[in-house]
Amino acid sequence: MRAQHEIRLAPRPRGFHLITGEVVRELPELEDMAVGLAHLFIRHTSASLTINENASPDVRVDFETWFNVVVPESFPAWTHTLEGPDDMPAHIKASLLGQAVTVPIRDGRLALGTWQGIYLGEHRDHGGSRTLIATLTGERG
Amino acid sequence: MRAQHEIRLAPRPRGFHLITGEVVRELPELEDMAVGLAHLFIRHTSASLTINENASPDVRVDFETWFNVVVPESFPAWTHTLEGPDDMPAHIKASLLGQAVTVPIRDGRLALGTWQGIYLGEHRDHGGSRTLIATLTGERG
Amino acid sequence: MRAQHEIRLAPRPRGFHLITGEVVRELPELEDMAVGLAHLFIRHTSASLTINENASPDVRVDFETWFNVVVPESFPAWTHTLEGPDDMPAHIKASLLGQAVTVPIRDGRLALGTWQGIYLGEHRDHGGSRTLIATLTGERG
Repeated sequence: MRAQHEIRLAPRPRGFHLITGEVVRELPELEDMAVGLAHLFIRHTSASLTINENASPDVRVDFETWFNVVVPESFPAWTHTLEGPDDMPAHIKASLLGQAVTVPIRDGRLALGTWQGIYLGEHRDHGGSRTLIATLTGERG
Repeated sequence: MRAQHEIRLAPRPRGFHLITGEVVRELPELEDMAVGLAHLFIRHTSASLTINENASPDVRVDFETWFNVVVPESFPAWTHTLEGPDDMPAHIKASLLGQAVTVPIRDGRLALGTWQGIYLGEHRDHGGSRTLIATLTGERG
Repeated sequence: MRAQHEIRLAPRPRGFHLITGEVVRELPELEDMAVGLAHLFIRHTSASLTINENASPDVRVDFETWFNVVVPESFPAWTHTLEGPDDMPAHIKASLLGQAVTVPIRDGRLALGTWQGIYLGEHRDHGGSRTLIATLTGERG
């Protein structure tokens, strides 16, 4: 079986945000799949999807701090500055982290590890609502 | 339905290059798929695939500049220097950006966002022609 | 056809390690697949999977050196320090490199390039045994 959904995420401030619950709620077919894969794809070039620790919020704070230091708005060689100082760093961060995650499905659930959650990386100051496409493929039990 | 193609890309100079059109041309089965996934995989360790802005060429220039600063040929601790000064930075860049992208298929097309294009990251000075394997899985409408 | 396996990797010291052979040994269905995809997913947030050069061991040494310089334990702004100085850098490295690789299957084998191997990035000092979920989808010849 195969299912595809467009998911509109609630707007979030710049930074890293746990979205596992918000995404899974939109995937009713998941519980019927005994084995499969869930592919999540963000249709933007200044936001990202990644997987990391779902417990301590300070991990997400440290992500934002580190990425801002390593991909700074003040980088003197930026030439693409027309869309604001946060735009070009957002593009680089989006490609470093990636636009998609694929998670195994097992027994009707995402087979994430105990400490794994899905992060939205919102890299713009005012990114607004972001759109995902979720594609599930799998087999009934 | 499932299809797999080996795609030989035209050689390109070091830097980031939009290859969406060149790739899609080689995927005739795409238009018959109502829903599915397209997996693109580059069979090299010094070039990468990523998704980013398809409009302003200066974004791709800034990608090259930033990656060269952060993964410099002059990094004093490189030990793997036998294949030239551009080789080890190319390996690191390839893994930071990744060897594959997976894009949802919807209504016979890649469901990329309006501003999204597929980039080849050519990280060697003289990388030559690069080979992709494209694997499509999906269902007819 | 579809198959899913949980694979427990042998514990390894901090650094980058070639695991292609150890993984393929656990995938008996591979040889029956004429065309398909193999998805490998690591169920942790302080270790990663990536693809890079399978020949010179000094490439893997240089990976470890570069990542330690760019994501240092001494980064002064870390706030998530409760689990040890190697923990927060491990989280960042895991998301830079990613938790998953998807490799095309062709003629009963992973269609890796000649020089490509699958790396485990072990980013903790004492990470212990790591668990993967391998999901294969494909068609018989």
